[in-house]
Amino acid sequence: MKAVGIVVEYNPFHNGHLYHLQETKRQTGADCVIAVMSGNFLQRGEPALVSKWARTRMALAAGVDIVVELPYMFAVQAAKEFAAGAVSLLAALDCDYICFGSESGDIHHFTEAVKALAKQEDKYNTYLKKALKTGVSYPKASALAFQQLQIENLDLAKPNNILGFYYVKAIMEEHEQITPYTIKRIAAGYHDQTISDPSIASATSLRNMLHYSIEHLEKIAPYIPESTKKMLYEYYSTYRLFHQWNDYFPLLKYRILTMELNEMREIADMDEGLEYRFKEASMEAKNFAELIDMVKTKRYTWTRLQRTCAHILTNFTKQQKESNKKATYIRLLGMSETGRTYLKTVKKQLSLPLISKVSLLEDHPIYKQEKKAAFAYASALQEPLRTKAVKEEYATPPIGK
Amino acid sequence: MKAVGIVVEYNPFHNGHLYHLQETKRQTGADCVIAVMSGNFLQRGEPALVSKWARTRMALAAGVDIVVELPYMFAVQAAKEFAAGAVSLLAALDCDYICFGSESGDIHHFTEAVKALAKQEDKYNTYLKKALKTGVSYPKASALAFQQLQIENLDLAKPNNILGFYYVKAIMEEHEQITPYTIKRIAAGYHDQTISDPSIASATSLRNMLHYSIEHLEKIAPYIPESTKKMLYEYYSTYRLFHQWNDYFPLLKYRILTMELNEMREIADMDEGLEYRFKEASMEAKNFAELIDMVKTKRYTWTRLQRTCAHILTNFTKQQKESNKKATYIRLLGMSETGRTYLKTVKKQLSLPLISKVSLLEDHPIYKQEKKAAFAYASALQEPLRTKAVKEEYATPPIGK
Repeated sequence: MKAVGIVVEYNPFHNGHLYHLQETKRQTGADCVIAVMSGNFLQRGEPALVSKWARTRMALAAGVDIVVELPYMFAVQAAKEFAAGAVSLLAALDCDYICFGSESGDIHHFTEAVKALAKQEDKYNTYLKKALKTGVSYPKASALAFQQLQIENLDLAKPNNILGFYYVKAIMEEHEQITPYTIKRIAAGYHDQTISDPSIASATSLRNMLHYSIEHLEKIAPYIPESTKKMLYEYYSTYRLFHQWNDYFPLLKYRILTMELNEMREIADMDEGLEYRFKEASMEAKNFAELIDMVKTKRYTWTRLQRTCAHILTNFTKQQKESNKKATYIRLLGMSETGRTYLKTVKKQLSLPLISKVSLLEDHPIYKQEKKAAFAYASALQEPLRTKAVKEEYATPPIGK
Repeated sequence: MKAVGIVVEYNPFHNGHLYHLQETKRQTGADCVIAVMSGNFLQRGEPALVSKWARTRMALAAGVDIVVELPYMFAVQAAKEFAAGAVSLLAALDCDYICFGSESGDIHHFTEAVKALAKQEDKYNTYLKKALKTGVSYPKASALAFQQLQIENLDLAKPNNILGFYYVKAIMEEHEQITPYTIKRIAAGYHDQTISDPSIASATSLRNMLHYSIEHLEKIAPYIPESTKKMLYEYYSTYRLFHQWNDYFPLLKYRILTMELNEMREIADMDEGLEYRFKEASMEAKNFAELIDMVKTKRYTWTRLQRTCAHILTNFTKQQKESNKKATYIRLLGMSETGRTYLKTVKKQLSLPLISKVSLLEDHPIYKQEKKAAFAYASALQEPLRTKAVKEEYATPPIGK
């Protein structure tokens, strides 16, 4: 059996994801699709609209065969660490291919860019440092450095290209046995806030609709599979919430207000006096957007600060971040019959333990953070749903299809 | 001018307090009554029904001349530390007398008990240790030890007698210039849950009525001065809340769920494996009472565990507790004209700085905890009231009458 890996957040799963999934199968000819998926907090530092369990159900219903969790440790990180963590898990699952979406749709643009960078890494670092000194954000500085290297055919100022670039880099440098693929994305751009194409919309625009009102579930129906619609409805019926940062704002504000400065400094990504800005802003901000607006400077992107907030909320420390750079287990969130068969065949050659029961991970440092993230995620719910969601982190067996 | 000190919580101020206040003036003949009052969190580890500002207004309206804050550091502590902290502040304010309520109403019962204990302190400690080894709570063990000493005329198993005992002990041992007084309490016992006397009810029963419904404000009117009623109404109209532990339960549960065990162990009063019990209980408990019930053992009283919860909520650490044993400033919450005159006359001989502007205390270790407590207290409110209450901690000048 051949397996192809994909890296997903499915927040929520929509027709664009469906297209990518089907094209991935078609172009690679793989028998089994393995998705490594961010858990309850996402790469941009946001809580997911619905839980990882609901999103796993969406993935399986749409044709994914295996869903494994990208630990918080890698999921809520900049592109490079996110990509390296995701690729390492797909490699551990013995994937033959990894396939990601991109604007260009030509994998050679990525492999050549990786090679080009490898030859000029010193130059890149010099340009990067120089750009950082002007006070711009890290992504901006990196984009400027890439521009100066004159890497052809790939605009590394675009966030999606950056992710693809780091997937391919991780594959070429550490997992040569994997063949990278890319599929041209269609229609809606990543950050599009409005819906224009008849069946494709960005996840952002879908979330905005849903946050506005559950009644918009009907309106977004053209852009999502029927199964996604059903699962969104079920999640909302049970938990009465589509999670967003504002639901966590009371907890975040409380936490910032009652932390000591030295505790703030222990939080991951809290550097260069950011703790003072957060403290000050927390005295004034009345919602999450206000808080970020008050903390923001040219140096920090919105996304970067959202991630820092996620780290505060989930109590994720620099020490944890620094001492856990490599994935050490594979947590199975769900699988189809095909997925089950695949796992049976590769079981013995997996390079990391495959975990279905998290009680086995109890004192594992990477899982510790996962648990904190799951509990923080549940904390936006009302009782008795909060306690229900807390227990699900332990008690939910891998979802079957 | 002669001044008499009283130690209060006024949660809320009621006719029993009024009686004590008037008798205190009458019996001591003092010109000025100084109340040292717990701030937003109280000795039994509870959030106050209404803020310290509202309670200061109640006190001034009823005839108290000066209200100063008993810092969290002393307020949310066992009887001995609570009493010592309160008495030291009243001594620093140059009080001539201290007057407290008691069941016996005879000050000699207290002074003799203190003398009796002083003579047999070693015995007391031996009995105490022995009792503790049987696994009972500290207050219970202390009560048993006192019983064995056969101190006559004073039942030191009663919480109010214990407080009085420690006031007198602090006075006799460290502040001999102060004359202690006691006034016989009337009607409702400290813990009475129901109302029987026509004009006196316990604060507990009044709170229970108010927590049940704001509409009960009319029903409790016979038991509180008109001014208290007005201030309770005003507070509720502004903040839409009479604070109680359940309002903080989501924050407390979130916090326990996302703390590491080693962080739990740094919290004040978190000893002997209590952190495991709290962690476990937080996975199941759906409200505050359930949480305490699950954590409780014979060794810990409800009050003791409530205090530990207050310490978790306000992030109060062992290190803070251990390194701040003495009051170092007097924070003025309010004063009458008489109070102002008194402060003018004694200003130069005060042994601690008198603070009206807390911005002056910015980095003061005792005030740091006060700020955290004030911010945690505000965290139960909805925006924009939460932000309003946060700012009040800084911005409210001493209340005038």
